[in-house]
Amino acid sequence: MARVAFQGERGAYGEMAALQYFPKARLAPKKSFQDVFDAAENSGSADYVVVPVENSIEGSVNEIYDLLLQTKMSVIGEVYQRVRHCLIANKGAKKIKHVYSHPQALAQCRGYVQKKKLEPVPAYDTAGAVKMIKENKMIDSAAIASRRAAELYDMQILDEGIEDRKNNYTRFLVLSPKKVSGKGDAKAGKYYHHYKTSIIFSVKHVPGALFGIIGEFAVRGINLTKIESRPTKETPWEYNFYVDFEGHVQDKSVQEALRSIKPKTSYVKILGSYRKADFR
Amino acid sequence: MARVAFQGERGAYGEMAALQYFPKARLAPKKSFQDVFDAAENSGSADYVVVPVENSIEGSVNEIYDLLLQTKMSVIGEVYQRVRHCLIANKGAKKIKHVYSHPQALAQCRGYVQKKKLEPVPAYDTAGAVKMIKENKMIDSAAIASRRAAELYDMQILDEGIEDRKNNYTRFLVLSPKKVSGKGDAKAGKYYHHYKTSIIFSVKHVPGALFGIIGEFAVRGINLTKIESRPTKETPWEYNFYVDFEGHVQDKSVQEALRSIKPKTSYVKILGSYRKADFR
Repeated sequence: MARVAFQGERGAYGEMAALQYFPKARLAPKKSFQDVFDAAENSGSADYVVVPVENSIEGSVNEIYDLLLQTKMSVIGEVYQRVRHCLIANKGAKKIKHVYSHPQALAQCRGYVQKKKLEPVPAYDTAGAVKMIKENKMIDSAAIASRRAAELYDMQILDEGIEDRKNNYTRFLVLSPKKVSGKGDAKAGKYYHHYKTSIIFSVKHVPGALFGIIGEFAVRGINLTKIESRPTKETPWEYNFYVDFEGHVQDKSVQEALRSIKPKTSYVKILGSYRKADFR
Repeated sequence: MARVAFQGERGAYGEMAALQYFPKARLAPKKSFQDVFDAAENSGSADYVVVPVENSIEGSVNEIYDLLLQTKMSVIGEVYQRVRHCLIANKGAKKIKHVYSHPQALAQCRGYVQKKKLEPVPAYDTAGAVKMIKENKMIDSAAIASRRAAELYDMQILDEGIEDRKNNYTRFLVLSPKKVSGKGDAKAGKYYHHYKTSIIFSVKHVPGALFGIIGEFAVRGINLTKIESRPTKETPWEYNFYVDFEGHVQDKSVQEALRSIKPKTSYVKILGSYRKADFR
């Protein structure tokens, strides 16, 4: 049975995403994203990791992008997880004053929290906030987390679907320390639009550098689905670019594009090619 | 005297940035970024706002990008503020176990916090964390904030320069609800490289769309200094792009580029042109 690491307590959205991709996995909750990567890459206590890269409202998860730069693992898949937040409290709770959750979940329910005049308090994790208010028997506090978290900790759901915008999804990546087998990839080519490839590159700070690189994809009709920049951390205001595009590294046009960008970049890393997930 | 709003308590890095740009300002600390924008845009209680857009280690401040999309104010300047974190405690504090600060400051001192085996606890604000451990007389806790915060609250500095990487700077933007006067902009043109312009645009999700737009700047030799994407929030996985480039909206080549991208975008907003700040 595959052992899969995710960040957060049981009931976290990361756990739901992991179960979507690996319905029968043995799940390993980890405190931090660094711990998640370590579990598969260093200690060998997990076979796969499932980590959030982007939320449709709040944008990219910066820390994951930094970990992707360092990892030797390959991206082998993606999962979209619908985010539907609940206001969760102890049974018998009354006059809720404070609401605990991950800062991003608090931000996603900003309108609701303001309307109800609750004081938002940041916590490390959505499901972890539920666990905390339960263990500390806090009766004037609630947490924002998934229905699954409320059920796992046997708590009361005061309100459901409290996020400000309903089209709230998080995209997760699945990574493996093993080399990609290529199994199931035989159809790449004709069915290139069923696949995505994720890469990282950096460019020298010259006019037109990024333009020249994006052009190598554009002239081959390769659709970029995401472009993200992150500081290199070495030199202020120099960036690594994270690009996702349609197609598979086994496709001829992708191979040509990757060959063409090499002399225009100071660094290129191919994170992996994987089947596009259904967006549901 | 100019009234300038910033986010955080007295002693925040935002206050230091505001004082760098307006040495004699009357400073107005605000709890949230939304409150900062409201102070100048709605209540009229501030003439200018100074807000962080990007840190050289942690990357962009997502919430500010979302507020820039909505604001009617213009960007009139930028400031670089060096970030040098201190470990700050009550006088007589001992056996520090917990350390409170803004999640980004905790992330920037991750190595130090782990080495010292401190438990990181997220707070809303760096200087606010100092104020909190003082008011609650917490003797087994410390805060991470600026030297200025330690001095303002008359606290003890246990350690200084505890950030993992020394090239730690935050770039702040200065905004004003008044239309830009153009004063001091007469030199634009020949001295275009002394100026920067910030714009936001969105593109339809078609191959080559972003490429075509960046190309209009590249063919005119206009250097892009920053490109950032943020979800539109309306439709999942559609993005607004935030681009900074060298040059002034009064420059002929900039005017041509902006005219040329119009038919290729579904939305364009010019945030403003302003003098480049010294990077110190």
